[in-house]
Amino acid sequence: MKEYRVLEVKQSIFANNDKDADKLRQELKEENTFLLNVMSSPGSGKTTMLTKTIAALKEEIQIGVMEADIDSDVDADTIAHTGVKVIQLHTGGMCHLDADMTRQGIQQLGTEELDLVVLENVGNLVCPAEFDTGAVKNAMILSVPEGHDKPLKYPLIFQVCDVLIINKIDVLPYFDFDLDKVREYALMRNPKLKIFPISAKTGEGMEDWVNWLRDEIRSYQDSSELKG
Amino acid sequence: MKEYRVLEVKQSIFANNDKDADKLRQELKEENTFLLNVMSSPGSGKTTMLTKTIAALKEEIQIGVMEADIDSDVDADTIAHTGVKVIQLHTGGMCHLDADMTRQGIQQLGTEELDLVVLENVGNLVCPAEFDTGAVKNAMILSVPEGHDKPLKYPLIFQVCDVLIINKIDVLPYFDFDLDKVREYALMRNPKLKIFPISAKTGEGMEDWVNWLRDEIRSYQDSSELKG
Repeated sequence: MKEYRVLEVKQSIFANNDKDADKLRQELKEENTFLLNVMSSPGSGKTTMLTKTIAALKEEIQIGVMEADIDSDVDADTIAHTGVKVIQLHTGGMCHLDADMTRQGIQQLGTEELDLVVLENVGNLVCPAEFDTGAVKNAMILSVPEGHDKPLKYPLIFQVCDVLIINKIDVLPYFDFDLDKVREYALMRNPKLKIFPISAKTGEGMEDWVNWLRDEIRSYQDSSELKG
Repeated sequence: MKEYRVLEVKQSIFANNDKDADKLRQELKEENTFLLNVMSSPGSGKTTMLTKTIAALKEEIQIGVMEADIDSDVDADTIAHTGVKVIQLHTGGMCHLDADMTRQGIQQLGTEELDLVVLENVGNLVCPAEFDTGAVKNAMILSVPEGHDKPLKYPLIFQVCDVLIINKIDVLPYFDFDLDKVREYALMRNPKLKIFPISAKTGEGMEDWVNWLRDEIRSYQDSSELKG
């Protein structure tokens, strides 16, 4: 038996996504739920990073996950094994999620008792960056094998993100990837970007990222008392 | 001095892209130019694969390259060093190229004397797959670090491609990537798919891919006499 539902999200009817995203952010603030939007290329390790983040936080924070994909339930199935609430969103070919599509997921998932909802966006460095989902914070994952030139090629996603997670640092010796250069290029796009080099596989660097996320959730919530 | 031009492609005015793509294919057939559309995720190694393919074929085949990107000239600059004709296409934020945008590139590049034009599409597994560019053949590159589950998550791109190049096989020992599984999943999407595991970096497997491409170009052209 599947331990998650699959939702076929519908194309939005709202012309003004920015306005709708602000409205969703307000709705989530009222229930004190922190929405984190995670974007990356296909295969950057979003799901593995998320699995480890959940393991580190789930005893203290109530977590839910929305897995968006064109098709397939591979990721929702993986996340379901962590024991947190999860829903699979199918975009029916669309390469992004906007605020209303995100809201459809939020409503199906049921988020009132949750402290943190993570939206794992469609694997893509272009379209997801163009739509405000209503998230409190946007994170992107860039993995070492993808190369350090990505901030030069995909400026927008680096501009809209608050956090850049550089994943798969365990394979740095096998790739021509310059950590200093990627920092330089990424900060050129967005000087406020927080950068966390990690290996979700080995756990290296995960602590700094998890601490940052915990602090953000705590300062977002009205008091330091978490739900549940 | 730059050895390539940069073209800001304009949004197409044609409502029926499929029809326009057929028209472009006909125009290219009349000048006997083979258009290859190459798609992949960001960082899969398209440009390195292309550099090696050019090196293997440029003495016998006249080659031109169109590098499409949201922004930046990184790839055109790399290809310009191989000595072939190259143009950089900027899509101005659009995540794909359709047939008319491809034609704008073809016209600026000047392709009459060319046997092969390679279109390096925007790095993305979703949008580019939705638009017929007018190419004779579509190739996609999937790199080992991206994972073997990609045919499950991005069905369309595997369906529209003639060739799947599995790149970065030199790092297979460091990743949980199953070559048999990716073959199985990819062929499930498209039983006619030709699959070439390669390492553009070390050259392993490149010969089979290059031989396939050479054969396709020869059989496309009216006689086995290539131009130039």
